[in-house]
Amino acid sequence: MIEHDIVFRLRTARIPGTLSKALASIARFGAHVGEIETTAIHREFNVRDVSVIAPSAESIADIRAALAAVPGVEIMDERDAVFDIHQGGKIMIQPRVEVRNIQDIREVYTPGVARVAMAIAEDESLADQLTWRADTVAVVTDGSRVLGLGDIGPAASLPIMEGKALFYSLLVGLNAVPIVLDVHEPDKIIEVVEAIAPGFGGIHLEDIASPGVYRVEDELERRLKIPVMHDDQHGTAVVVMAGVLSAARQLGKNLEDMVFGQVGLGAAGSAIARLALAFDFKRVVAFDPSSDAGARLASFSGDSATDLEIHGGPDGFDKVVATADVLVLTSGRPGLMTSDHVRGGQIIFAISNPTPEISMEDAMAGGAAVAADGTIVNNVLAYPGLFRGALDAHAPSITVEMKRAAAESLAAFPAIGLLPNPLDRDVHRGVAQAVADAARE
Amino acid sequence: MIEHDIVFRLRTARIPGTLSKALASIARFGAHVGEIETTAIHREFNVRDVSVIAPSAESIADIRAALAAVPGVEIMDERDAVFDIHQGGKIMIQPRVEVRNIQDIREVYTPGVARVAMAIAEDESLADQLTWRADTVAVVTDGSRVLGLGDIGPAASLPIMEGKALFYSLLVGLNAVPIVLDVHEPDKIIEVVEAIAPGFGGIHLEDIASPGVYRVEDELERRLKIPVMHDDQHGTAVVVMAGVLSAARQLGKNLEDMVFGQVGLGAAGSAIARLALAFDFKRVVAFDPSSDAGARLASFSGDSATDLEIHGGPDGFDKVVATADVLVLTSGRPGLMTSDHVRGGQIIFAISNPTPEISMEDAMAGGAAVAADGTIVNNVLAYPGLFRGALDAHAPSITVEMKRAAAESLAAFPAIGLLPNPLDRDVHRGVAQAVADAARE
Repeated sequence: MIEHDIVFRLRTARIPGTLSKALASIARFGAHVGEIETTAIHREFNVRDVSVIAPSAESIADIRAALAAVPGVEIMDERDAVFDIHQGGKIMIQPRVEVRNIQDIREVYTPGVARVAMAIAEDESLADQLTWRADTVAVVTDGSRVLGLGDIGPAASLPIMEGKALFYSLLVGLNAVPIVLDVHEPDKIIEVVEAIAPGFGGIHLEDIASPGVYRVEDELERRLKIPVMHDDQHGTAVVVMAGVLSAARQLGKNLEDMVFGQVGLGAAGSAIARLALAFDFKRVVAFDPSSDAGARLASFSGDSATDLEIHGGPDGFDKVVATADVLVLTSGRPGLMTSDHVRGGQIIFAISNPTPEISMEDAMAGGAAVAADGTIVNNVLAYPGLFRGALDAHAPSITVEMKRAAAESLAAFPAIGLLPNPLDRDVHRGVAQAVADAARE
Repeated sequence: MIEHDIVFRLRTARIPGTLSKALASIARFGAHVGEIETTAIHREFNVRDVSVIAPSAESIADIRAALAAVPGVEIMDERDAVFDIHQGGKIMIQPRVEVRNIQDIREVYTPGVARVAMAIAEDESLADQLTWRADTVAVVTDGSRVLGLGDIGPAASLPIMEGKALFYSLLVGLNAVPIVLDVHEPDKIIEVVEAIAPGFGGIHLEDIASPGVYRVEDELERRLKIPVMHDDQHGTAVVVMAGVLSAARQLGKNLEDMVFGQVGLGAAGSAIARLALAFDFKRVVAFDPSSDAGARLASFSGDSATDLEIHGGPDGFDKVVATADVLVLTSGRPGLMTSDHVRGGQIIFAISNPTPEISMEDAMAGGAAVAADGTIVNNVLAYPGLFRGALDAHAPSITVEMKRAAAESLAAFPAIGLLPNPLDRDVHRGVAQAVADAARE
């Protein structure tokens, strides 16, 4: 079931308690209330736009009927704000320069642009100054593994890539171009991205199925001299690690005294385990319930990945759970863990979507000091600052040190729960600065 | 030699005649004066930014010295406005929607966007409503034949594609994304463009070398259900034909009474000849001085192209020149035509760059009624309205009827010489409307 947001425009009698009764009628069907915006206050009634987060599309008819039955409440209008806001798309291209007269045309276009083109032909790096390239990222997908939706193809994944691009512009002033591909073989994806790369300063890979995406990322990193990052892996890893650092600080614990345990070594899990190795944990241990455990880890090149202790076999899970002070679960197996498994004082992030390995309630009941599920993992916290920092520093790739810097920076900002507000521009500026500093070292 | 625009900031004594002496000193070196902007008027002096169109980079030192030697003139500053305006690029991506709070994030991104993605997965055509696609064109080049510069490669052609994109945004509100390709084989270009096509509403091909580009255009038109157009061919043809229509009207002549002659059947020439066939000329005759004459024409599919009379052999040129009332030359051969060839009353467009087949002066001296060279051909007049109209009408391709409508619309606007002001938004709206109407028929 997909949550369904809908906006009711309500005319409510100005009798104290009317709005609360309206909200109560919404709550009866398991729906939450989002923004409430008052659009008119009259002598006898108010008009309010009430955003309702319905648990499913099917529940909306019930909510509508219940609202209409509340005395003093009238539904004036009902709109699907999600579809409304998507009309015509979420991003656009705009001029950065003024063109008022023929002289301006001579400067931005012929004949002036010919001198700019020739300068770049002689020294390609000038394209980073004289075009939009140094501030421009391609957000690339083939739509083969989108959110919780699976393989929905390129066109259907376009609104999601536009969403990524929207936040790039809004939060860090980067141009991000959605590129949705009608090819799916890793080698084809690599070929196409390599072909279009001269126009971009970075490549953000998104929602491409594993294991193909590992090869796509590795190979593009090898072939291109610009940063390439698969957000589902590394963006997620940075946000999770920021949450872990934040939890540790809230508990007054030092990483040196803690064992980090990772359960699930898929795309996100292997990236998280790898990033954990860059921090000062006492040990990093891991377990994967699937038979191809460690397939991704085996491909890790050089660095500290060799320090990872992978527990296999039937008792691997018990060993990791029994050892870890911080436990991150990305196994995709609902109910894998029960409250009996929990050790007192553990930090538990069970982030598989839509259903975690253990509910936050059960984890806390078992004695966890901090428990979180997938709702805390918002990649919008990480990728804009990661690319902004990498591009500012002209970094040829996004290294583990840059990801570590991003996680530490995120964890240092005032949190709502464990992580900061994703719409706070200062947060993204801070991450970008930390990433750029790490890149320059 | 490439013209070199430069801006001098001059402090000129407020003695009548000082500015004119300064301008005279510039003219001595064959330089033209562009915009003059007064930035300060004092009691004793003025400050003006004078744009100078120098014939070459080398001539600038002479101009500078001459200016400095004018009594009462001081050069305060000198800047290369072309490079200044290119810093950081000419276009940017901006949000089209507001994102102020968490509810907005829920609508533009997760979880709301999942419903939008699913809707498109079920009905792909919804991507034209719910994403930026229906207003978005890819401007694609491999940089293999750029302006007068030749094969300068993808990165160096990026500022030129940005220029195209800038005018798309400015003039008709389309998003145009520069895509510069690091592949050059026609089949590779086709593969890459086909792969990225699901994210775009149209494909604008630019500055790709012939004859490869013919295959690229034909094959992409065949494979994709969206408009594909090679601007160097068809944009040029539309603008030239608009100029011809305008000239005929100024002379009070009917197309039915005139023979149209095309000399040169390369990329632009063959497109012009083909477009001419869509008008009511008495006959359309053509000649190509190269041995592979008609290679492109031979590939014309079906339509009226069979009506084209191609004259080959050593006397082909003389035959065409002797027959044509309207003569368009795109042969790339400076001096191919002399004033002795001209028949009284001919309309002559000798548009090869940088040197025409016959100068305007010689054509007029030979008795031409109207003469024009390549400087009148500004594609910015055509491509924005062509794509805007095609996209507005959801046309699957840009047909010859649509190009004809564009040329007629352009010719109907008040002209500066033969063609309207390229910065007049009404012109582009008019072209778009005419193209959309033609598409819908």
